[in-house]
Amino acid sequence: MLAEIITIGDEILIGQIVDTNSAWMAKELNLIGIKVKQVSSVSDDADHITEALQLAEKRADIILITGGLGPTKDDITKVTMAKYFNMGFRRDQETLDHVTEIFTRFNKPMIEVNRKQADVPDGCTVIKNQNGTAPCMWFEMRGKIFVSMPGVPFEMMYLMEEEILPRLKRTLKLPAIVHKTILTANIGESFLAEEIADIEDGLPAHIKLAYLPKLGQIRLRLSGTGSDEAALKAEIEVYAQQIVTRVKQYVVVEDDIALEKAILDIMDKRKLSLSTAESCTGGYIAQMITQHPGCSSVFAGGAVTYSNQLKMSVLGVLPETLNIFGAVSEETVKEMALGAIANFKTDYAISVSGIAGPDGGTESKPVGTVWIAVASKRGVATRLFKFGNRRAQNIERSAVAALSMLLNELKQDVA
Amino acid sequence: MLAEIITIGDEILIGQIVDTNSAWMAKELNLIGIKVKQVSSVSDDADHITEALQLAEKRADIILITGGLGPTKDDITKVTMAKYFNMGFRRDQETLDHVTEIFTRFNKPMIEVNRKQADVPDGCTVIKNQNGTAPCMWFEMRGKIFVSMPGVPFEMMYLMEEEILPRLKRTLKLPAIVHKTILTANIGESFLAEEIADIEDGLPAHIKLAYLPKLGQIRLRLSGTGSDEAALKAEIEVYAQQIVTRVKQYVVVEDDIALEKAILDIMDKRKLSLSTAESCTGGYIAQMITQHPGCSSVFAGGAVTYSNQLKMSVLGVLPETLNIFGAVSEETVKEMALGAIANFKTDYAISVSGIAGPDGGTESKPVGTVWIAVASKRGVATRLFKFGNRRAQNIERSAVAALSMLLNELKQDVA
Repeated sequence: MLAEIITIGDEILIGQIVDTNSAWMAKELNLIGIKVKQVSSVSDDADHITEALQLAEKRADIILITGGLGPTKDDITKVTMAKYFNMGFRRDQETLDHVTEIFTRFNKPMIEVNRKQADVPDGCTVIKNQNGTAPCMWFEMRGKIFVSMPGVPFEMMYLMEEEILPRLKRTLKLPAIVHKTILTANIGESFLAEEIADIEDGLPAHIKLAYLPKLGQIRLRLSGTGSDEAALKAEIEVYAQQIVTRVKQYVVVEDDIALEKAILDIMDKRKLSLSTAESCTGGYIAQMITQHPGCSSVFAGGAVTYSNQLKMSVLGVLPETLNIFGAVSEETVKEMALGAIANFKTDYAISVSGIAGPDGGTESKPVGTVWIAVASKRGVATRLFKFGNRRAQNIERSAVAALSMLLNELKQDVA
Repeated sequence: MLAEIITIGDEILIGQIVDTNSAWMAKELNLIGIKVKQVSSVSDDADHITEALQLAEKRADIILITGGLGPTKDDITKVTMAKYFNMGFRRDQETLDHVTEIFTRFNKPMIEVNRKQADVPDGCTVIKNQNGTAPCMWFEMRGKIFVSMPGVPFEMMYLMEEEILPRLKRTLKLPAIVHKTILTANIGESFLAEEIADIEDGLPAHIKLAYLPKLGQIRLRLSGTGSDEAALKAEIEVYAQQIVTRVKQYVVVEDDIALEKAILDIMDKRKLSLSTAESCTGGYIAQMITQHPGCSSVFAGGAVTYSNQLKMSVLGVLPETLNIFGAVSEETVKEMALGAIANFKTDYAISVSGIAGPDGGTESKPVGTVWIAVASKRGVATRLFKFGNRRAQNIERSAVAALSMLLNELKQDVA
């Protein structure tokens, strides 16, 4: 079963926004067993949209279209699709009521252009957009499915999750598809592949293994298709456990979640608290952690000690340590982590100090040199990393490395 | 002059990575006066790539292709393009030397598959890829320009900036194009448009004004085309100054840089120092600031005081304040900001405390309630914001609001 995604709107073509919708949609479609053949971004131009529809209809069974549904006259997706399918328009009462309700709630005057949002091609099924005024439209024509959705990410995501994906599964009677993700860290892709090569080779044809690497973490995803979902799930679990047993020391969690979220879950379960002491990562680690709701049960907070002054006053790093060994040293990150534990009163603390670049490097400590420490009641673990030249990447890689080290310490703490 | 972008590779189509390349390329092309007609993401499949090339060649003058240039056998862009143009292969000595040098430097054994990276279609011009082993290839065929680049973002960006964009300008003898960006904050788009409507209406046909809104900031970009670059620049400057004079109180900087970078520049010039005291933004503001090289001349650091305990111990917020008014209150953010100034010894401090969600809201303080304070020797400015329901957006909007408030204070400080 093949799908295509067409995104409509000049914002992408002038580079004003990055199209994050397509990747998200592609991932969700893949998870229910629909392959994406092509993603096309086209302009708000009737001929161009029509050409894109024609080509996509030739190549795919499902065509998902986002954008171009606003009330202004440059948004022409709806009119173009009606013309493409040779349909007239009808005013949809439920949509009109919904739009009216939104305008009333925000106490805004409603004009004809807003009412027009309720006009839809007469051959489509309207799907209510809970989060906006532009309705979602579902067309079944010539044996293919076309869905027009708003381009605003959270409106589209809600519609996809609640309406479109379930409806696609029902309408297309898709086979059961089961996934199981194992998140690993602290191991390279080729090394990991070698470790589990025989397990991968032994997989039956209906179960596939994918390696999804990202910044020092690798997600292993087993995906299987079949008719009996429960049996398939049990079968995949057998292979998953073979893998987990084989590479136990690298497994973070048997779930498709972020590394820091997995750590938060582990620490929450064990009623452990965490603080951070960041220099070169400048708050990046704290921000990764606090993006997750509920993190406050584990994360007390931390310090961004960019200046040496703050390393001393907030974390209690000794002036001698900074003078003799420098801010980027094993001794300094050790004292930073211990200072965080002492001052922030947490069970664990991670600290990072390094040269993110592009300036500040020396011959003995070039740009990319980063020291990381993890402190707990068991003591302080430290490690030196040598990353590359690019600031943003050095910050991201330092953050992931610090979290991986913390995870390692948490594992040893149990053993 | 029209361009198309074709990205090749399954990673985008399975949703493993977000295609950030296309938006970046589109923006750069627009800046030199080349419009992007379509962006297509296609799979590593010869027929599919060929079809995409054919269609793009019909619609556009310049076709930029990224991805599919790795050494493994699923990367088939090079072979497919050679076949598309009916070309044979030659081994490019300079590329071979470059690849050999890279393998020698990293002390890695080189096998035939690596040497093959130096094989290129015999009708193309090879452009050296300084940052990787896959060469960039430039084809001029049937009056059109085709460029094949690696998909790794920093390799592509370097090639575009150093080689492709200058070469396109030379080859196509593009007219001079001049841009001038004015960054504004603390004003809505429609209000801004109303304020400068007459200036916009008075622009000559060869100068256009674009509104580029992003999270509480709006960039105004004047773009003009002409034959005399110096005259054009002077002409655009006249209109830019009309705008700046009209909306002076909202102008952050007359340049296309980030809000926080503009603030850092202003503070650096005035030798002012800054610290942060973040609760609900959880390090997000510190991280925004520290992504900019050289920020240490202004930014001393800060605290992420997620727990009340840390608000008291690190920032000196009084227990009574937290008890009586709560963590999300004017009184608390005031004490947080003053505590940051006192403990971190900076001229300015910003503090944020709010309910990011999805949990933690109450009737009187629903999710999205955020208090922000900016402290300086002039005192403390505070403001209450009511954002929405979504955590990530509440964090981002709080950060931008805090920076905008800081900017306001900096402006008043001079006046």
